[in-house]
Amino acid sequence: MVRINDNYLKLKAGYLFPEIARRVNSFAQANPDAPIIKLGIGDVTEPLPEACRSAMIQAVEDMGDRDRFKGYGPEQGYGWLREKIAAHDFQGRGCDVDASEIFISDGSKCDNGNILDILGADNTIAVTDPVYPVYVDTNVMAGHTGEADDSGKYGGLVYLPMSAANDFVAPLPDRPVDLIYLCFPNNPTGAVASRETLQTWVDYARAHGSLILFDAAYESYITDPAIPHSIYEVEGARECAIEFRSFSKNAGFTGTRCALTVVPKSLRGTTSDGTLTDLWSLWNRRQSTKFNGVSYIIQRGAEAVYSEAGQDQIQTLIAFYLENARIIREKLQSVGITVYGGVNAPYVWVQTPGGLSSWDFFDQLLHTCHVVGTPGSGFGSAGEGYFRISAFNSRANVEEAMARITAKFA
Amino acid sequence: MVRINDNYLKLKAGYLFPEIARRVNSFAQANPDAPIIKLGIGDVTEPLPEACRSAMIQAVEDMGDRDRFKGYGPEQGYGWLREKIAAHDFQGRGCDVDASEIFISDGSKCDNGNILDILGADNTIAVTDPVYPVYVDTNVMAGHTGEADDSGKYGGLVYLPMSAANDFVAPLPDRPVDLIYLCFPNNPTGAVASRETLQTWVDYARAHGSLILFDAAYESYITDPAIPHSIYEVEGARECAIEFRSFSKNAGFTGTRCALTVVPKSLRGTTSDGTLTDLWSLWNRRQSTKFNGVSYIIQRGAEAVYSEAGQDQIQTLIAFYLENARIIREKLQSVGITVYGGVNAPYVWVQTPGGLSSWDFFDQLLHTCHVVGTPGSGFGSAGEGYFRISAFNSRANVEEAMARITAKFA
Repeated sequence: MVRINDNYLKLKAGYLFPEIARRVNSFAQANPDAPIIKLGIGDVTEPLPEACRSAMIQAVEDMGDRDRFKGYGPEQGYGWLREKIAAHDFQGRGCDVDASEIFISDGSKCDNGNILDILGADNTIAVTDPVYPVYVDTNVMAGHTGEADDSGKYGGLVYLPMSAANDFVAPLPDRPVDLIYLCFPNNPTGAVASRETLQTWVDYARAHGSLILFDAAYESYITDPAIPHSIYEVEGARECAIEFRSFSKNAGFTGTRCALTVVPKSLRGTTSDGTLTDLWSLWNRRQSTKFNGVSYIIQRGAEAVYSEAGQDQIQTLIAFYLENARIIREKLQSVGITVYGGVNAPYVWVQTPGGLSSWDFFDQLLHTCHVVGTPGSGFGSAGEGYFRISAFNSRANVEEAMARITAKFA
Repeated sequence: MVRINDNYLKLKAGYLFPEIARRVNSFAQANPDAPIIKLGIGDVTEPLPEACRSAMIQAVEDMGDRDRFKGYGPEQGYGWLREKIAAHDFQGRGCDVDASEIFISDGSKCDNGNILDILGADNTIAVTDPVYPVYVDTNVMAGHTGEADDSGKYGGLVYLPMSAANDFVAPLPDRPVDLIYLCFPNNPTGAVASRETLQTWVDYARAHGSLILFDAAYESYITDPAIPHSIYEVEGARECAIEFRSFSKNAGFTGTRCALTVVPKSLRGTTSDGTLTDLWSLWNRRQSTKFNGVSYIIQRGAEAVYSEAGQDQIQTLIAFYLENARIIREKLQSVGITVYGGVNAPYVWVQTPGGLSSWDFFDQLLHTCHVVGTPGSGFGSAGEGYFRISAFNSRANVEEAMARITAKFA
């Protein structure tokens, strides 16, 4: 009889966000008039930039003209988009990244999971704690972990705690690891990595032959000019790092879907007999075989991000969400709540008041303020006692949510 | 040091289509004035239906309005699209398929590969020969096969030959198999499966606890009313089959990207300790964790396929390509070339004249007629001596290609 992948049964009851949705729906059904404000999922709320919309309408019109119609595109993405990304996002910041090393995809979450396809089953894997759950869950599903313990930690993974106690700087692993997930600006804590911190990681990875999976989905929120946007701004990263980026959070593409992954041609891994093999060829083969490229229409929308108008419009969007983050930080601080992040990131990482557990604070905010956030413990046991508030919402909703919370905690 | 997935190194030199592209590019560079006509890759050429374009333009405009803006959608696809598919493509043909069993994706190729994520590593797998290479290659990449032999057959797979000798009806496996890939109308042979043939497979699968992966990407080309469009038209298929469908070939979405996979809630597989587990929940978890849904804009385009105008327009498109197929068949037959398929499918499966090998015929057509097709042996060793010609091109190109071929073989 057909056998299933048993590893799926190791997954804990629910991916974090479905569990939040379940509690919110349950509350909303019992309290249909409660004006719930959602600052939970990191989903954008403001309209798509006009430059992107115009480009997509033009692209739809291309599809109606036989001479301009596009069938299957390159699985790696169109050259005109890859070239603009390479020039603007990487070469413009001094990074040695070629357009051929950029793979366009329909989402960073997808690529974060799919990248495991080309890696072996016996790598030792390090993740920060708290951590974006997809890094962990996709490794569980791929059979790279043991069972979860009572705290939700999976056997075999190396967890690197990040909390106020270490200024949200993850320590180097206490044993050699092969694969390291880093996300900066960090989801969920909103922490950033200095150039020195990133250099430490790159040096570690090169010394140990490790591969860093660097998630830079939030790089556009960096306001401090001293903070690198790309890991390739750091010496040696081309030898040890893959970088994931997205148009979701800078251009509001969460429902439009476009992202990219950088796989330098200089990256190497080993086969089980120790032969060095380049990772770019494996990823190129993976994408050619299991992916058919992103819609031409959507790629034209992403390209418009790099026009002058597009750049102006996304800067306005980012500034808008960062101002929301400032309001959240300052309002919470005004009633004595300790907060982190929210300066170079769209997430404010709140220390729960009164020593409440993360889920108790979640329930309290939902039931008394009708505000939804994300329990820190949902991101890992070191997130217990913290709570993530997202800056992605309208100004009016952010102000109203903060008014309710400050009224309660004043 | 980081280890790679060694299974990738078992893959033969190139996925078929890149190898074709290499030979065509090489010829084109040496003969820049040769007017090459491509009837190789099954890629559509005609403009996207007006109904789909109008709906996508409206959707782009929605994205510019804060109240109509869409962020993250359901990973499974929007209910309004799933409902229309369930009603029109399945319930309308007497199939018991619920909207909740339909998962919208960005491509059948992706889903065909990704489905292996939820299945175990020790299933015995049957494929037809010839076969769409993605079924085989994704199993190689997932470590479900041994090495390839000289004929290109991978150890561990059960190959079911389909040729003129058995009227392109694949025999049942000679040993029990757990997973069976079927594609009807067939790519590459253009053969169809009668209701009786499908019933035989469903009965086999139910008797052996096997899972059928049924690729119906070309169902809209079925003209014979006696041929089922969906495997769920056959009694018992809900207990043993997953079906893949696409908007690529009916509505011309190869560059627009939208597809769907049906995973009935009644499907079961076993864990390694023999516990029955439902597959729908595993696929739902896989999609929620490793996918973020298809662009809202594209889903609105797919929805328009089900409008009255959309249905008219796709019927016109399908009739156009089927008329191309008729011309190809009849012109080749007029010079004594034996052909199969091309009646209920957009592919004509040509027996190479004079006993030429598939690749020799490919090179001959390219060099003397400047026409590109696909060597049958690229789909498997039982495809040797055959050649696939696609009906996806303009009428003028099809007529010109056939004029050149008939002139050569007259």
